[in-house]
Amino acid sequence: MIPTKVFHYFDHNATTPVCAEVIAALPELAQSWGNPSSIHWGGRSPKNILRDARKNLADALGVSPLEIVFTSGGSEANNTVLKGVFDYRQTAPFVSAEQAGRTHFMCSEVEHPSVIKTMQHLKALGARVDFIPVNRQGEIDMEFYKAHLSHETALVSVMLANNETGTLFPVKEMARIAHEKGALFHTDAVQAFGKIPLNLQDLGVDFASFSGHKFYSVKGSGFLYSRKGSYLSSLIHGGGQERHRRGGTENTLGIGALGVMAKRLALVADKAKQLEILRDHMESRILSEISEVTLTAGENLRLPNTSSLVVKGADGETMLMSLDIMGYAVSTGAACSSGNPEPSPVLLAMGLSRAEAQNSLRLSLGWDTTREEVDGFVEALKTVVARLRSINNEEEGDSCHV
Amino acid sequence: MIPTKVFHYFDHNATTPVCAEVIAALPELAQSWGNPSSIHWGGRSPKNILRDARKNLADALGVSPLEIVFTSGGSEANNTVLKGVFDYRQTAPFVSAEQAGRTHFMCSEVEHPSVIKTMQHLKALGARVDFIPVNRQGEIDMEFYKAHLSHETALVSVMLANNETGTLFPVKEMARIAHEKGALFHTDAVQAFGKIPLNLQDLGVDFASFSGHKFYSVKGSGFLYSRKGSYLSSLIHGGGQERHRRGGTENTLGIGALGVMAKRLALVADKAKQLEILRDHMESRILSEISEVTLTAGENLRLPNTSSLVVKGADGETMLMSLDIMGYAVSTGAACSSGNPEPSPVLLAMGLSRAEAQNSLRLSLGWDTTREEVDGFVEALKTVVARLRSINNEEEGDSCHV
Ligand SMILES: Cc1ncc(COP(=O)(O)O)c(C=O)c1O
Ligand SMILES: Cc1ncc(COP(=O)(O)O)c(C=O)c1O
Repeated sequence: MIPTKVFHYFDHNATTPVCAEVIAALPELAQSWGNPSSIHWGGRSPKNILRDARKNLADALGVSPLEIVFTSGGSEANNTVLKGVFDYRQTAPFVSAEQAGRTHFMCSEVEHPSVIKTMQHLKALGARVDFIPVNRQGEIDMEFYKAHLSHETALVSVMLANNETGTLFPVKEMARIAHEKGALFHTDAVQAFGKIPLNLQDLGVDFASFSGHKFYSVKGSGFLYSRKGSYLSSLIHGGGQERHRRGGTENTLGIGALGVMAKRLALVADKAKQLEILRDHMESRILSEISEVTLTAGENLRLPNTSSLVVKGADGETMLMSLDIMGYAVSTGAACSSGNPEPSPVLLAMGLSRAEAQNSLRLSLGWDTTREEVDGFVEALKTVVARLRSINNEEEGDSCHV
Repeated sequence: MIPTKVFHYFDHNATTPVCAEVIAALPELAQSWGNPSSIHWGGRSPKNILRDARKNLADALGVSPLEIVFTSGGSEANNTVLKGVFDYRQTAPFVSAEQAGRTHFMCSEVEHPSVIKTMQHLKALGARVDFIPVNRQGEIDMEFYKAHLSHETALVSVMLANNETGTLFPVKEMARIAHEKGALFHTDAVQAFGKIPLNLQDLGVDFASFSGHKFYSVKGSGFLYSRKGSYLSSLIHGGGQERHRRGGTENTLGIGALGVMAKRLALVADKAKQLEILRDHMESRILSEISEVTLTAGENLRLPNTSSLVVKGADGETMLMSLDIMGYAVSTGAACSSGNPEPSPVLLAMGLSRAEAQNSLRLSLGWDTTREEVDGFVEALKTVVARLRSINNEEEGDSCHV
């Protein structure tokens, strides 16, 4: 009998499995193939899919359905806000001189590339951009923030939770401070969505970005929360969909799947508690059973499912490959930057050395992760680290003889 | 026994049913839920989905896989090209003075809103934009085109086939002329895709836009053909996906579905012939059996599945509603502008009066449309038109007595 390999997934921050509820809904969603804009029978059921999903999400997040704009994912939502706010002030017919004079943008140094690269692009277009530093614990430099925020600031963008370390940022407080200066506030909530309970009304932000595939739904779907009265240009001009805020025939399959997941947001608070216990168990075993491992940003508030580790003397990519062979999926930095040999810019921004960043591992658990899997993983990691360290020691020994 | 209502779909230019092959592929595509950027086992099968779909599409269209950029649909592809070419000349570090001086854009007056509105937006950003007129037969004004094209022209965008009338434009010739002046050429091929055979190499354009849901695939998927060496800024900046041309985790479900449909492109030539016979049969019956009906742009080259009619004395929206009750789905103008009481801008641009545009009906057939359905439809239309005209006559009579 050929033993089948068992796969264990410890990379839920990269993406999540599509859950059974969504898979079950797909055939019916695909049968509702009409164009939601059609006024004949073909448009009715897809229109209902959009309406229900929008309402489910709005209810679950404490906002109004009209404030939800469906997008192709988190990256599009982030680009929409940053470019849309910049562009609006250049092109809208009735922008006050005060508003047009706001050409300053800010974001943290550890944002996702869809924010960082977009900010760099705004710079090329003439905006003034400041990147707010973070410290070794991942904490944002509030002094820098307050010192650089001004009446020229158009928009501040700080993520709710970091994808690599899980660090939670004080978005509520930062949004309040931004508003005092008349600036808009955006948060990239992609990693927080489905991992911690969320109420956007309470958070007080003007914009928030979400992605379906980080919460057991399909890739290529997501949405933007755009607070009533927060104006911005469309990233995609077109046929008037999404109340003229986002052109393009709606991804009814992806949107319907988000509607399914919206109902599951009620489970998040309990799941978060379970995940935290599991994650803490994993961390305490790793830290006590493997020498010279440090937890990155472990003392700060963070997502309940994420661990970011530095394992001295063990290359991250080699650990990843070795664990992969044993069936364990983990990540070194952001999934998006994989295939890129450069160490994670997020970890470097936090003040880790290149060597430390190169020796890092990100573990992110999911709703279906079990204690047995975690224990199996710790054993696998022990084996891998011991082997890598012994090889490295031999190599060091060899090189002495040369 | 309660008779079940039978539905007949004559609105394939608005969207198409998801075909059985795609529906059958969905569960497996959803099972490949990994992030294509992941370098562990989770990334392998989604990466294969992307690679295969890209290759299938490139092969079917006569181009290289590297020239295919997946997007969330036709509207995103159109926005990417227009905004991307405009933006690139403003922000790229190595743009020659000759290239930077190209601030003139052109498109036809009958483009889809995702082109027209984007062009209007470029105007607000400082571009000079000319809209090329068309005549009553839908033919583009080549004299205007040649007279306005210049060494300042950055990009010309003319659709391959119009969504409302089916008119085919001389894109190959227009692209050649644009290139003589050093301008780039984009074609919105959304309506041509899957309706007529297409070879992009032969067409000689620099960019072309495609959408999945117009060709029996799912909504929210599409792609951009971007010829090697044609530079443009990203519409969505992010994590380096699509070779840094389009950020965002890939919609593997939608892309996989496009890969399935790519293989069916080989059937298009035969299907087109069958559809044309069916459409011509429908038109000849309508024109001979209903008085005072005219075909819009019927003498020009056009898509084999599309009929655009003006029915004197019968309001388009009322015909649509009446036919809908009888189970027939048709359209008055673009699906995107439905719910909008304004007559179709495309028909007005062609020189139809507001009354004519208001009395218009678009019929678009699909691969599964049968002769029986067409004959049933003609009978239904006869009934509807006769009723509307008799009501109108009575009303006119009544108003005489007032
Ligand atoms: C000619 C044309 N271009 C672009 C589009 C937009 O494509 P999508 O619906 O995928 O955004 C459509 C359809 O709505 C169309 O008919
Ligand atoms: C924090 C964060 N923002 C944005 C994104 C991008 O979302 P999407 O993959 O839906 O484009 C991701 C994931 O890749 C992320 O982790």
